[in-house]
Amino acid sequence: MIMGLKRLLIGRPMKSNALGEEKLSKVKALAVLSSDALSSVAYGTEQILLVLVTLGAAALWYSIPISIAVAGLLTILILSYRQTIFAYTTGGGAYIVAKDNFGTSTGLVAGGSLLVDYILTVAVSTSASTDAITSAFPILHDHRVLIALLMIISVTILNLRGITESATILMYPVYLFVVAIFLLILGGAYQWLTGNVQAHAPVYGAAVPGITLFLLLRAFSSGCSALTGVEAVSNAIPNFRSPAPKNAALTLIMMGLILGVMFMGISLLAYVFGIAPSAKETVVSQIASAVFGRGVLYYFIQAVTALILFLAANTAFAAFPLLAFMLAKDRFMPNMFMVRGDRLGFSNGIIFLGILSAILVISFGGETENLIPLYALGVFIPFTLSQAGMMKRWVTKKPAGWLVPFLINTIGMLTTLTICLIFLITKFSQVWTIFIFLPIVIFIFRKINGHYQDLASELRLDITTDKPQAKGSVIVIPVAGISQVVKNTISYAQSLSDDIVAVYVGFSDEDIKKMEEKWELWNPGVRLIVLRSHYRSIIKPLFKFIDTVEWKKADTDHVTVMIPQFITKRWWHNLLHNQTSFFLRAYLFARQDVKIATVPYRLKK
Amino acid sequence: MIMGLKRLLIGRPMKSNALGEEKLSKVKALAVLSSDALSSVAYGTEQILLVLVTLGAAALWYSIPISIAVAGLLTILILSYRQTIFAYTTGGGAYIVAKDNFGTSTGLVAGGSLLVDYILTVAVSTSASTDAITSAFPILHDHRVLIALLMIISVTILNLRGITESATILMYPVYLFVVAIFLLILGGAYQWLTGNVQAHAPVYGAAVPGITLFLLLRAFSSGCSALTGVEAVSNAIPNFRSPAPKNAALTLIMMGLILGVMFMGISLLAYVFGIAPSAKETVVSQIASAVFGRGVLYYFIQAVTALILFLAANTAFAAFPLLAFMLAKDRFMPNMFMVRGDRLGFSNGIIFLGILSAILVISFGGETENLIPLYALGVFIPFTLSQAGMMKRWVTKKPAGWLVPFLINTIGMLTTLTICLIFLITKFSQVWTIFIFLPIVIFIFRKINGHYQDLASELRLDITTDKPQAKGSVIVIPVAGISQVVKNTISYAQSLSDDIVAVYVGFSDEDIKKMEEKWELWNPGVRLIVLRSHYRSIIKPLFKFIDTVEWKKADTDHVTVMIPQFITKRWWHNLLHNQTSFFLRAYLFARQDVKIATVPYRLKK
Repeated sequence: MIMGLKRLLIGRPMKSNALGEEKLSKVKALAVLSSDALSSVAYGTEQILLVLVTLGAAALWYSIPISIAVAGLLTILILSYRQTIFAYTTGGGAYIVAKDNFGTSTGLVAGGSLLVDYILTVAVSTSASTDAITSAFPILHDHRVLIALLMIISVTILNLRGITESATILMYPVYLFVVAIFLLILGGAYQWLTGNVQAHAPVYGAAVPGITLFLLLRAFSSGCSALTGVEAVSNAIPNFRSPAPKNAALTLIMMGLILGVMFMGISLLAYVFGIAPSAKETVVSQIASAVFGRGVLYYFIQAVTALILFLAANTAFAAFPLLAFMLAKDRFMPNMFMVRGDRLGFSNGIIFLGILSAILVISFGGETENLIPLYALGVFIPFTLSQAGMMKRWVTKKPAGWLVPFLINTIGMLTTLTICLIFLITKFSQVWTIFIFLPIVIFIFRKINGHYQDLASELRLDITTDKPQAKGSVIVIPVAGISQVVKNTISYAQSLSDDIVAVYVGFSDEDIKKMEEKWELWNPGVRLIVLRSHYRSIIKPLFKFIDTVEWKKADTDHVTVMIPQFITKRWWHNLLHNQTSFFLRAYLFARQDVKIATVPYRLKK
Repeated sequence: MIMGLKRLLIGRPMKSNALGEEKLSKVKALAVLSSDALSSVAYGTEQILLVLVTLGAAALWYSIPISIAVAGLLTILILSYRQTIFAYTTGGGAYIVAKDNFGTSTGLVAGGSLLVDYILTVAVSTSASTDAITSAFPILHDHRVLIALLMIISVTILNLRGITESATILMYPVYLFVVAIFLLILGGAYQWLTGNVQAHAPVYGAAVPGITLFLLLRAFSSGCSALTGVEAVSNAIPNFRSPAPKNAALTLIMMGLILGVMFMGISLLAYVFGIAPSAKETVVSQIASAVFGRGVLYYFIQAVTALILFLAANTAFAAFPLLAFMLAKDRFMPNMFMVRGDRLGFSNGIIFLGILSAILVISFGGETENLIPLYALGVFIPFTLSQAGMMKRWVTKKPAGWLVPFLINTIGMLTTLTICLIFLITKFSQVWTIFIFLPIVIFIFRKINGHYQDLASELRLDITTDKPQAKGSVIVIPVAGISQVVKNTISYAQSLSDDIVAVYVGFSDEDIKKMEEKWELWNPGVRLIVLRSHYRSIIKPLFKFIDTVEWKKADTDHVTVMIPQFITKRWWHNLLHNQTSFFLRAYLFARQDVKIATVPYRLKK
């Protein structure tokens, strides 16, 4: 039944050789990889305004120069990442680039930072999507957590179904969102040019009392949250159709262009329509309702905004399992993140991400706005490391004409490093936790790696000299009486070894005597050892006996305990049997160096 | 750590031969077995008054004749049960007596009824005890469920510690309660004789408008709840010191006397002091505060009343596991109820009772007063069956002078039968559920019995002809590569059989080719079969292969799948290994008729 439900939700299993077909075309890739970046438009401008409005409406004009600075930064990032794509054609995520150029430790900082960041992406995006919905339908405000959780569950299931399929589903909303925002920008521009704007915009360039560089930097760093997600393309090169690097680079540039235009458009409209941030309604919702009124177009824009934010979470679902896979391949994360599921996605990574982000949403009660700075910093740290890695690469390899790309990466590195510092200085209260969780994550990576290395050295074997060798073997069969089960088990034991001991644990002398007599009568060709238990425990006397057997035998000999086990017809029948075999197995397993053979006895009724 | 906690709570394990020492002396037995019966005094009179007060305070004088009738009934019951004790010296519970004389079906009705009743006892007694506490300290009223649950937990732990020990603890409160109630009666009588009673009692014999036989019978049946618990002694004869029957009979009579005097005393005082039942304060609390005022004596009486009611639950904890043991011995309940725990009590029965009664208390929110009629009926059904059984016994065996005891049991049977009918007629709305749960319980008994019978016939073996026989055996070893673990497993397999197959499941042709070459190089003396998995599942191809092996071999040959299993040093290391061996075991166990040998490989780091 569980299997049936699984089939219904995620579809029938797919063959491994179907993997090639799962590659992404540019159009699909843009959809599946850019929803995170593009959706940042929904909150990027708002984050800037939220900082500025603390000085009053007159300060809001600063959003224009700040937005231009952010757009400039976007250009630098896109150019830098384009170079990474061609340098690391098999996937140039920050983890790979940093590890490749600075060694494992730096790689782990980038990797750990990104890994945590993807979890934040899902939490922040689904919460922001919920905001878009509750802006349009305030009545739903009390069900924020539930709505966000339903989103996480849906996106998890979508991803378990497999990447191409989810990309197909995702294409429409992403492009619809692009269409919607462009419609909004055009509509707004039309209203502005025809002089239909009722609200008066703050005077551009007006002096604002109390303005400080600190505040402006803070607003700028807030705006940088609009840039989260641009790294997704360079991490996912292996998912592209060949020629992968070229396709990926084109996709990246397309994405940068669309993102830049949309972000600037929204910022300009917000300025022109004199919009101030509000706790109850998002900035985009305010612009849309100012441009189109609360009609069909307004609800269309809100719907696709909610949808794109919901799908932004999907980018993390595409990126997290891939990064986890790479970390697992390098033995810094558990093996299970390397296993492909029925639909060829890395199911464990997908499920893990779903659960962790759901926990985040629940523990923050759906109010994850405070996580945005942390989330943005978590993006800019690997940005910086990745650029620095590229710089080192150019200097080390010095290919023909390396200077220009080196300079591009240098500017990129310096810019992102500066932004990191701005974050730390202006928003320390919201980002200090990174100094806690990053070391913890890296510690865990190291611990896991240590274990795998120990394991490998322990299991390694010299193929030329290390061969298996047969040794003597003794089989111990605990018996509770004489029955078909015991006969069955002894028959089996006799087919494996001549050295068999049946052990009976009795609770009274009377029991023991009776058993001995009956055994002699039966005479199954196996010697019976009787033990007396004073504490009504079967396991303890048996343990002592096994210790004796082990001690008598040579070091390398094998002691096998053969445990008969009923397999009942109906599940509730299990309640009717003392689970002695189960406990015996568990105890032996935990305490004794013996082999345990379970001999199933299938009950017919 | 769990073990340590267990030791702390229930003490060190005891040897089986310490069982004899656990027998009860008369003084202790009276304490451990009569708390249920004696504690009924705390609510018996109140139950009568609750019915009468519906007609107004003037009707309360009827409580006197009704109490006399209840006391008469008590005499009959004690005399009847005294005969049962001598007839069934190894424990004459209603289940045994009914089964012995009328066959299994009737026995199961009595047994099932009692079993459910013990659960109700615990729920009702702990709730009533909570009432006594909250009468004295109204501030605790909101924490009723919590208080009742803490009581259930405590009494469960007490019983897990073992019966003698709990009896020692229990002696003092039971006798203190007897002392307290006698003090109350004497004090009340003194006040009354010296004319210090301010309240005026309802006029005895005054005509009450609206009084009906129905109402009086209802009040009488309510009063019969004071008789619950008197059967405990006859069920527990095996727990007495020898001569058990004589000691038990004496204990029974003592208990009857004390109970009768206390019940009549309370009823008379309630009448004399003109007390009407109240939702907020128990009748006993009202009497005590009327007699002594809210001083030290009042709180003493409330405290020991609460204590005795708490300990009444203990009677059920003494009786339930014993009855469950008897039913399990007759194969109507799961084996586990026959197992004696570390402290020689039937731990499973104790824990089972604790959990079920806790569930009852929670689901009724601590307001279990409505369960009292059901509880009383659940006592009187087995009473009736037990008396009827004794009647049949006398008629069948006809020992010398059987007529008088036969008559006593006949009167007993008729009286209890009448009370059952009165219950059904006057309180149908509160007791109808017995027609649901009793059939269900009996159905379960029958189902369990059926399974055990099938099992026994399936496992039975002819000791003279049915001997074990050795057959050929093939060992299948799934391998994932070449390592110390594989070497270890093959060494072990070679010590058991010559027919060994290693199976490798590869996900790509490349993997398979590599493995084959490496295997040839290693040459461990075991042939390797390679399988190609298209769906990245190891289990399915392996299953198919095992099916083939099974098919090739003769019917009776053994197929063993040998599964290497890491045993890690630390629990979290398990997260780092794909639990393939675990899943393999689970699947093989559920689907295939193969033997499963687990070969532990203990990691050193």
